[in-house]
Amino acid sequence: MPEKTLVAPADLRTFAATLLEKGGLCAEHAATTADVFVWAAQRGVESHGIARVPAYLDLLTKGVANPAPELRFESTVPGAATLDADRAPGPVALTAAAEEAVTRARTNGVASVGVRNTVHTGAIGYYVSKIAEAGLVGIGFVAGMPNMGYTGVQGAAVATSPLAIAVPTPASSDHAPLLLDMATATIALGKIRQAKASGTPLPEGAAATADGTPTTDPEQAVMPLPLGGAKGSGMSLAFEVLTSVLVGAPIFAAFHSDDPAGRKHRQNALLIAVDPAAFGNTDTFLADVDTTLDTLKSLPASDDSTGVHYPGERSAAVSDERGARGIPVAPKVWRDLSERAADLGVTLPETVR
Amino acid sequence: MPEKTLVAPADLRTFAATLLEKGGLCAEHAATTADVFVWAAQRGVESHGIARVPAYLDLLTKGVANPAPELRFESTVPGAATLDADRAPGPVALTAAAEEAVTRARTNGVASVGVRNTVHTGAIGYYVSKIAEAGLVGIGFVAGMPNMGYTGVQGAAVATSPLAIAVPTPASSDHAPLLLDMATATIALGKIRQAKASGTPLPEGAAATADGTPTTDPEQAVMPLPLGGAKGSGMSLAFEVLTSVLVGAPIFAAFHSDDPAGRKHRQNALLIAVDPAAFGNTDTFLADVDTTLDTLKSLPASDDSTGVHYPGERSAAVSDERGARGIPVAPKVWRDLSERAADLGVTLPETVR
Repeated sequence: MPEKTLVAPADLRTFAATLLEKGGLCAEHAATTADVFVWAAQRGVESHGIARVPAYLDLLTKGVANPAPELRFESTVPGAATLDADRAPGPVALTAAAEEAVTRARTNGVASVGVRNTVHTGAIGYYVSKIAEAGLVGIGFVAGMPNMGYTGVQGAAVATSPLAIAVPTPASSDHAPLLLDMATATIALGKIRQAKASGTPLPEGAAATADGTPTTDPEQAVMPLPLGGAKGSGMSLAFEVLTSVLVGAPIFAAFHSDDPAGRKHRQNALLIAVDPAAFGNTDTFLADVDTTLDTLKSLPASDDSTGVHYPGERSAAVSDERGARGIPVAPKVWRDLSERAADLGVTLPETVR
Repeated sequence: MPEKTLVAPADLRTFAATLLEKGGLCAEHAATTADVFVWAAQRGVESHGIARVPAYLDLLTKGVANPAPELRFESTVPGAATLDADRAPGPVALTAAAEEAVTRARTNGVASVGVRNTVHTGAIGYYVSKIAEAGLVGIGFVAGMPNMGYTGVQGAAVATSPLAIAVPTPASSDHAPLLLDMATATIALGKIRQAKASGTPLPEGAAATADGTPTTDPEQAVMPLPLGGAKGSGMSLAFEVLTSVLVGAPIFAAFHSDDPAGRKHRQNALLIAVDPAAFGNTDTFLADVDTTLDTLKSLPASDDSTGVHYPGERSAAVSDERGARGIPVAPKVWRDLSERAADLGVTLPETVR
């Protein structure tokens, strides 16, 4: 294996932001977008990490993403709003939506912000984490383009639409926030690509051929199957309704219609912020969250156990470690980034190794 | 197989309500509780159906459920409230919570009501369906007593805590509302009992022995395993935080503590009502939901398909059929109900067969 390049998070962030700014984004939007990708990279979520920067530069060049979007909040009630993102990059749109949800939840107890017309949201975990950083519970749903099976259907029917939940822990706690960030698929699309590259068979029931037949052969597999069959299928469909249909921008129905425009990439989302103060005492809530995580960590491990972990715990540990030692960038991604840097006249970041 | 007794829904409802009233509930609470059980029975959800009536009579006798609860809403903000259920039966508490969530969501766009100190909620699908009947989207989470494995842990760690989402369809539509109502377990506890009774092996990875070892032997299996391993584990833990910890009544931490009181049965819940009008036009929303369901139904079925269904579709069809032909009551349940009727001086309902 060729060695990965190591870059300090702050340097990688500045570098990515500079590339994105050269790609057309304003400084603020470039910084926000870079922060989302570096956050994911630092936590070990490579699929949503720094490799997305070249992809986003292409989206900006092709006009899929709008470099100068006019974000517009529509709202008639105190607890809810819809953000028309005007094809803003997902990180720009969803960060604005998360801030709006927090502000509204502080006075209403709960608030929800829908986002329509954005592109590639990036890691949904980032936005619910922003809500948790503000001391509230964040819940997020995203719907995208169909790329997953649906129980009983031939071919790709629905999207691997994720659910994310972030819960703050006390400032004094050793525990990182609880952060559940899960797709409704059995396995990630990236796992299929990895299995193909390494020639490893896929787990039973995890992936399917183009016509929807389950397969363990990574050469035949083109899409993941829904988590638990009907359950993952149902969640994905429900999330499409909770996001795309709610904000008036259906993806699923348009994708499967005769109109080719329905296959144009876009994503929608819904964020919900829940203020624990509205249900009781915030300090008690935070202390009880901490006790809950303590309790889980103290449960006896099973014989085949690789450890007892709560959602988000391991990614937070990876983030700490990469924060100290640098973020590894895969050779191919580093080459891509170097090319883009040369094209756009951007200096490469200092490398740790 | 001995034949099941068939009873018309309205008669079964009146009968169940009369039993519950004799068991100590006031007429209104008895009617609400009976409605929840008969709703589930009519939809084919036997585990939450009419068999729960004798169980509830016992809960009332033992004082686990409070026959004369004082329901108290606590709230300091327009969009959120907590209902202290004073050990009211779940159906009474959650029906009141659903109504409160709808009322608050109509003016706030989104509203959330937490429920603490209730017993056996019954089918969570009922309450989110009530929200959908009012024209809003309902989201519900419930947490209960640990009865499921957690990835890496020995023994029962977390609860099979369900997630439910209900979405209304237009009044003119042929489609029943979308109703997702899923536990975070791979299979239901009831399926383990059924497999034990019939001597059928369980699916791989679906259940575990008392110490948490996965098994397909129904004689050895005592609990279901979480859906998709870490995903189901994480959802269940997150739902405990979103319900029990949020409303100040932790179950998981108390259950695993040294205090025997922590093992006393109770459940908590969180309902969220989302008004589509707050995100755009309700008629457009309903029409787009209908188109989404039409689209799904028109997708090509896979070779091994038993049909393409959206969540809640089949239960709604069962409900229609049972509404017309009567609700089948299993012999053992009918015997139990007959005994209770004799004890309490209640006349058995007329039977269709």
